[in-house]
Amino acid sequence: MRKLVNDPFAVVDEMLDGIVAAHGSEIVRTPRGRGLVLAKRDPARRVGVIVGGGSGHEPAFFGALGPGLADGAAVGNVFASPSATPAVEVARALAPPDGVLFLFGNYEGDIMNFGMAAELLADEGIASETVLVTDDVVSALDHPSERRGVAGDVIVFKAAGARADEGAGLAAVAAAAQHANDRTRTVGVGLGPCTVPAAGRPTFDLPAGEMDVGMGVHGEAGIRRGPLAGADVVADELLDIMLADRAPDAGESVLVLVNTLGATPLMEGYIVLRRIVERLASAGVPVHRSLVGEYVTSLEMIGLSVTLVHLDDELRRLMDAPARPLAGPGFGTEWR
Amino acid sequence: MRKLVNDPFAVVDEMLDGIVAAHGSEIVRTPRGRGLVLAKRDPARRVGVIVGGGSGHEPAFFGALGPGLADGAAVGNVFASPSATPAVEVARALAPPDGVLFLFGNYEGDIMNFGMAAELLADEGIASETVLVTDDVVSALDHPSERRGVAGDVIVFKAAGARADEGAGLAAVAAAAQHANDRTRTVGVGLGPCTVPAAGRPTFDLPAGEMDVGMGVHGEAGIRRGPLAGADVVADELLDIMLADRAPDAGESVLVLVNTLGATPLMEGYIVLRRIVERLASAGVPVHRSLVGEYVTSLEMIGLSVTLVHLDDELRRLMDAPARPLAGPGFGTEWR
Repeated sequence: MRKLVNDPFAVVDEMLDGIVAAHGSEIVRTPRGRGLVLAKRDPARRVGVIVGGGSGHEPAFFGALGPGLADGAAVGNVFASPSATPAVEVARALAPPDGVLFLFGNYEGDIMNFGMAAELLADEGIASETVLVTDDVVSALDHPSERRGVAGDVIVFKAAGARADEGAGLAAVAAAAQHANDRTRTVGVGLGPCTVPAAGRPTFDLPAGEMDVGMGVHGEAGIRRGPLAGADVVADELLDIMLADRAPDAGESVLVLVNTLGATPLMEGYIVLRRIVERLASAGVPVHRSLVGEYVTSLEMIGLSVTLVHLDDELRRLMDAPARPLAGPGFGTEWR
Repeated sequence: MRKLVNDPFAVVDEMLDGIVAAHGSEIVRTPRGRGLVLAKRDPARRVGVIVGGGSGHEPAFFGALGPGLADGAAVGNVFASPSATPAVEVARALAPPDGVLFLFGNYEGDIMNFGMAAELLADEGIASETVLVTDDVVSALDHPSERRGVAGDVIVFKAAGARADEGAGLAAVAAAAQHANDRTRTVGVGLGPCTVPAAGRPTFDLPAGEMDVGMGVHGEAGIRRGPLAGADVVADELLDIMLADRAPDAGESVLVLVNTLGATPLMEGYIVLRRIVERLASAGVPVHRSLVGEYVTSLEMIGLSVTLVHLDDELRRLMDAPARPLAGPGFGTEWR
């Protein structure tokens, strides 16, 4: 492994030590160590927005803590769901008047553990709602509600955070998150694997010069493998899959997010964005905002994903609201 | 190559198209295309802060454009200096009352081309000063002024931007940049190479399981090669080299910057930061601020660097001033 780690089984706890060392004035770690809570929260918020999932996707999910975004995060082992404990601890620490909203990608382990947390919290009188992120188009082409969550996570987090900042109650914040999810589509491409430290070997085989179109953020196989094509050809294929799944309505604008997976240079993200924006422009689809960078990575996986968010007036407002993530490339709204 | 590119010789221009597609409301591209200028500048600034260097280090250098930071950037080919043209075009576009300050790493090509730009601008009546970044300790252990510039770039840019925001004149802004550089030390470690698209082969050979201590951001050899050690052992070696070069003065605090090179996950950056902060704490050196992320990358090189900034009152003030980079992890000051 070409990795700077100590004990491969301690990477998450040591990473959390580092996160607290870097951001300790902004966040607090929960008693058992796997939950993070924003230290200064907006008192106007009635709902606590809690995100989470496995580690290895940094800056997701801790990076989404911050004003305009999430209030807390539950942190799992590498590519594994957090247990119920951090979600419960984070919710208790927040204790918001209207309850908490759990946001995470549609994976079995996360559903089980956040579900258990919700039950435990209900016993304590803390209400909760859950919205699953399901943006990965090819993971269930014909069954949108069964799709996995990938880079669209951060769009759903952003929508919920902005709505919570408006003082909305739990049902309304959950509805905003669900609405953002319903209008968000992602397709990825994998060019090379990563190695989970505790496993010590690559998560999948993919020879150099080949690509996996539609690959998920844990290396889940996509819809086809083939020779690696040029950036524009790949961008076109990803975009065409998304547009076939949902064409923009007349008068609609889109947000484009190019998420680089970990080892793919930012340079390539911008090259792909350029093509996506060109294609949308020639199709007459206005691009409201474009984001490029490492939002939801997969350790050192090679590849990227393209996300389209079909914006209506509500989503435009929520995407344009100011937000300052603890880590990560941000939403282009910190300039306001 | 596991790369999403079109023509390998067009990667920089296509990247710049993408940068303008993403950030076009904040920046303007100069006529010949290789210069970027902040669209809305602080009218109180008397000095234009211009940064630059080769591409392949994204988010450096374009990411350093922004309030509190740089006003313009000159962009070269991958790992190659920009020509004089973008520096001249950016300076003309800025036309600040007190002239421009050029900030770049200490590399021959950059010195030659920015020097040529300075001469051309002098003929047009635009004054300029230059401060070279020389933070890479092992690149010239016994000759500090001959060291190369690496991740410390962004510290020097930040200091100059903050001083320019205070309305300082050209000599004072240059002095602040020089002061920041004099107090900044970096040591890197390389675990694996990158591939320049137009070259099509790795920049150097380094077997998996080995490391190069002191490696530069273009793969320049460091001071020793050996078996890859655990993260704490590596962190200790990097820190010890820096502390041997300059021990903290009594009462001094430091800023720590862990810069991941491109393919090294953020997780490993935080693990290394954790150890550096522990070590400094046990040595009684207060850590004023810690930063982790991709600030100055080397395409998909594997490795990272650790930077120490020895803060005095002036540098603390300049580092704490608000800043909002166009891209990249930021300075932890956007929370103010």
